[in-house]
Amino acid sequence: MIKDASLQEVEAAMSASKQAFIHYAHTSLKERAALMRSIAIELDGLGDEVIQQAMQETNLPEARLKGERARTIFQLNSYAAACERGEWLEVSIDTANPERVPPKPDVRKTKLPLGPVVVFGSSNFPFAFSTAGGDTASALAAGCTVVVKAHPAHPLTSSLVAGAVKKALKKLSMDENIFIHLHGASNSIGESLVKHPVTKAVGFTGSFQGGMALFQWANQRPEPIPVFAEMGSVNPVFLFSEKLSQQTDSIAHQYAESITLGVGQFCTNPGIIIGVKSTAFNSFIELLASKVSAMSAGKMLHAGIASAYKLKSKEVLTQQDVQLVAASTPQDDSIYGNPVIAKVDGTRFLSNPLLMDEVFGPFSLVVQCEDIEQMKSVADALPGQLTSTLIATDQEITANKELVNVILSKCGRLILNGVPTGVEVGLAMHHGGPFPATTDSRFTSVGADAIKRFARPISYQNYSDALLPDELKNKNPLNIWRVVNDVFTKDKL
Amino acid sequence: MIKDASLQEVEAAMSASKQAFIHYAHTSLKERAALMRSIAIELDGLGDEVIQQAMQETNLPEARLKGERARTIFQLNSYAAACERGEWLEVSIDTANPERVPPKPDVRKTKLPLGPVVVFGSSNFPFAFSTAGGDTASALAAGCTVVVKAHPAHPLTSSLVAGAVKKALKKLSMDENIFIHLHGASNSIGESLVKHPVTKAVGFTGSFQGGMALFQWANQRPEPIPVFAEMGSVNPVFLFSEKLSQQTDSIAHQYAESITLGVGQFCTNPGIIIGVKSTAFNSFIELLASKVSAMSAGKMLHAGIASAYKLKSKEVLTQQDVQLVAASTPQDDSIYGNPVIAKVDGTRFLSNPLLMDEVFGPFSLVVQCEDIEQMKSVADALPGQLTSTLIATDQEITANKELVNVILSKCGRLILNGVPTGVEVGLAMHHGGPFPATTDSRFTSVGADAIKRFARPISYQNYSDALLPDELKNKNPLNIWRVVNDVFTKDKL
Repeated sequence: MIKDASLQEVEAAMSASKQAFIHYAHTSLKERAALMRSIAIELDGLGDEVIQQAMQETNLPEARLKGERARTIFQLNSYAAACERGEWLEVSIDTANPERVPPKPDVRKTKLPLGPVVVFGSSNFPFAFSTAGGDTASALAAGCTVVVKAHPAHPLTSSLVAGAVKKALKKLSMDENIFIHLHGASNSIGESLVKHPVTKAVGFTGSFQGGMALFQWANQRPEPIPVFAEMGSVNPVFLFSEKLSQQTDSIAHQYAESITLGVGQFCTNPGIIIGVKSTAFNSFIELLASKVSAMSAGKMLHAGIASAYKLKSKEVLTQQDVQLVAASTPQDDSIYGNPVIAKVDGTRFLSNPLLMDEVFGPFSLVVQCEDIEQMKSVADALPGQLTSTLIATDQEITANKELVNVILSKCGRLILNGVPTGVEVGLAMHHGGPFPATTDSRFTSVGADAIKRFARPISYQNYSDALLPDELKNKNPLNIWRVVNDVFTKDKL
Repeated sequence: MIKDASLQEVEAAMSASKQAFIHYAHTSLKERAALMRSIAIELDGLGDEVIQQAMQETNLPEARLKGERARTIFQLNSYAAACERGEWLEVSIDTANPERVPPKPDVRKTKLPLGPVVVFGSSNFPFAFSTAGGDTASALAAGCTVVVKAHPAHPLTSSLVAGAVKKALKKLSMDENIFIHLHGASNSIGESLVKHPVTKAVGFTGSFQGGMALFQWANQRPEPIPVFAEMGSVNPVFLFSEKLSQQTDSIAHQYAESITLGVGQFCTNPGIIIGVKSTAFNSFIELLASKVSAMSAGKMLHAGIASAYKLKSKEVLTQQDVQLVAASTPQDDSIYGNPVIAKVDGTRFLSNPLLMDEVFGPFSLVVQCEDIEQMKSVADALPGQLTSTLIATDQEITANKELVNVILSKCGRLILNGVPTGVEVGLAMHHGGPFPATTDSRFTSVGADAIKRFARPISYQNYSDALLPDELKNKNPLNIWRVVNDVFTKDKL
C-alpha cells in the first residue's frame, strides 16, 4: 500500500516547486527542449519493467501499453520541437514612431510561464495522460515547474516514470524540483494542491465530478487559477441515410470495433449513435448488434471503473423505452466490462437527460429519430463534446447545413466518415470542447498547442534590445516567426 | 431618468442574440470586417452631438473625448484589418499519410466563435472601452453577437453610440440583433445577463468588486463561461538610483503629469512609486511634490467615483506612518478630485496590505525602501498588475536580474523609462495581467489579439475540401498564413 503524501510533504513540494520555478522560468527554449528529449530517452530506457508494472496495475494489454509509451515519447519529442520553434510564443513587435504625436512606443510581446503547475494523472492512459504525459510535457515546454499527483490506480507505474524524469534532470544537472511526484489516494491531497497559493494552473483528465471539484476549488481561491480539465464526452455520431445505405456493413464493423476498443475506456468512445429510421438504419443496428454480441468482454482498468460501468449501463437500460439491442456474453469476474448496445427513440431521448450522460466503458446508445428535424433537435439538446462524427455524403452535408452547424457548435473536433477514437498527436489536433467536455474550450490537451495553456503574454515597452528575451531581439537570434508591424516574418529588424 | 431593462427585455434580448448568432457565426471574415468599418464610419458620423453628450455625462473634456472617439474608430478599423488577415484563427493543417500504420488522418484546425457575448461598458472610457469599444469590436470580429449593458453613468452617450451600430447593421442589411443595447443601473440586470444560459462569454472593465461579482456568477452557472474582467491595478514604478539621479527633474515632471492625467482615472495610473532612500530619491519626492501641488483639481467622472476617491485616499492617509507629501488646493465642489502624493517606508508598506490597494484617482503612494533587498520584498508582496515600470539604466537592470524577474512575474506589460499611462492600440500590446489585475492573464483587452478571447479552436478530420471553411481549403483562397505540417506558409496545398 502506497502512503499518501502528508500535508507537510505537500507544503514542502509546493515550496520547492516555487523555488525551482524562479530559475526554470527563464531557461532558454533549447534547454527546455533538451530536458523533454532527455525525459523521452529515460522513459524508453525504463524498458519492459514499467510495461509489466502498468499491465499489473491497469489490466491494459502489453501491446497497447507499448504503443502508449511510444506515443508519450513522440509527444515529448514533438512538443520539444515545437517549444524550440517558438511559434507558441506568438511573438509580435510594433516598432516605435517618434514622429507621431504622441510618439508611438516600441512594444514587443512574448510569453511567460504561469508558474508551478499541478498535474493529475488519468487512470486510462498511464503514460500519455499521466506522470510524464501531455500536461507535464506542455507545462515544462512553457517554462513551468510541475507537481504531479500520481493516479492512485497505478502508483507504482507512476513512480517508475517519475524516476525517469528525475534521472533526466540529474543527467542535465538541472534542479530536481523542476518536477515533483506525490502520491495521494485521498481527495484532500488534491484539494490542498489545487488550493495552495503557489499553484498557478492545473491539468486534469478524468471524470466530470473530479474535474468540477478541482474547477470549483480553483475558482474559490483568493486568487483564482485556470483548470484545464478534460472530463469526457459521449462523442455523438450522426448517421445520414445515403452514406449509411452505401456502406452499412463496413460502418457497422468500424463502430463495433470503435465502441469496444480498449474496453471502451477512451474519452473519445462513441457513446451515442444517432440516425433517422430507415431500412439502412435498421440493417446497421442489426449488423452492429451481431458484431458487438460476438465481441468478448475485457478487463477494465480497476474494480471501481468496472462496477461504475455496470451500474451506469444498467441505469440507462432500465430507463423507460430503452431496449437492449446487443450484449456480448458476460464474464463472471466483476473486473470485466461487457460490450452493450442499447436503443431508444428520439422523442424519449429528448425527454430524458439522463440518456445524454457518458457511460464510461464499451457501451453505446443508438437513438432512432423520426426525421432529420428530430435529429437536429437531438443535436441541439446535447451538451458540449470532445468530438462529433458525421457519416454522410458531401451532398447530405450541403443539404443539412443548419444541422451540421448545430453539431459544430457543440464539439471540438468534427470527423467525417470515420470513428472518434484515435487522437492524433499533431499541431492541428484540437482535443478539447465546449463545457462539459472540458472546463476551457479555448485550449487543447493534445498537440503542441497544449503548451499555450501554461503561458501568458507579456509586453515590453521601449526596452533595451540587449536586455530583451532572445525571441524579441532585433536580430531574431532564435530565427523564429514573428509578426512585425502586422506582417509575418523571420527577418531581423 | 433612463429605465432599466425588465427581465422580459433581458430574456428577449438573449433570445434574439442567440437567433442572430446562428447566421452571424458563419459570416465571412470580409463581412465582419465590413460591419466593423461601417460602425467606425457611423461613430464618426455622430459628430459633435455625442461629444457634447459625453461631456455632460462624464465631465471629461472635449479634446480628450474627441481623441478617445478617434481611438475607438482606429480600434474598429485595425481589428477589422486583423480579422481579415486571419492570423487570429491560428490555422494549422496536418496532412494525411495513408501509408502510416495506423493511417494518419488529415486534420485541420481553425476557430469558431464562442456565442453571444455580454459586454459591460466602463465608466472611464465612454467610447474606447464601452458600447462600441474594444470588447464589442473583438467579439464581432470573432463572429459573436453582442449584448451591451450600457454604463449607467453615461446611458445617453451609450444610446447614441448604439444607434450608430444599429445604423451600420441596417446599411449592410445585416440582422439588427447582431448587436443589442440594454440599460441597467441595477446589479440584477448584470446578474441575469451573466447567468443567462445563452451567454457564452463576458467582457468587463471596471472595479475589482464588480469584476469579481461577474466572475463568480459566471463560474456558479451550470455551464461556467469565461469572464474577461479588467479590474485595475496600482501599476508600480520602480526607481533605480543611478537613472533617477541622472534625470531627477524630468522623471518627476513625467510622473506629476502621468499621476494627474485625466484626473487619475486610468487603469494604468501609477499608484505606487518605489525607490531606495538616497539623495536622488529625496530630490525626486520634493520635485514631484512641488509639481503636483501646483496641479489643479479636476472634475471626476461622477459623484460616486469622486466620493470613493476621497474616502479611499483619506483611508490611506490615516494609516500608521503614512505621510502626506503633497496635495493641490482642493475645490469646494465635491465632484472634484484633488491630486495627492503620500509617502511611507518600505517596512510599514510590507506590513499593511491595505496600502497595496488601488486608489482610483490622482493619487500616488511613494514607498521608500531601506535597500534594494527591501525593494525586492516589496515587488514580491505586490499582487498582479496590468503594468510595471522600471526607471533604470541598462546596468541597473543587469545588476538586479532577480528583482526584475520578480517584477516581470507580476505584470502584463513592463515599461522602461517611461510612464504606464497611454495604452497603444497594436498587436504587440498586452493589456492584461496576473490576477487581480484581470480574471484571465492569458488574454489582452487591447490590440487585435483581443479577438482571441471570443473564439475556440475546432478541428476537422478527413473533411471534404469543398466543404471546409475557406481558411482551411487546399487552395488557401483567403491567402492567410497557415502552419502546414509544422511549417508557416501562405502556399496552397
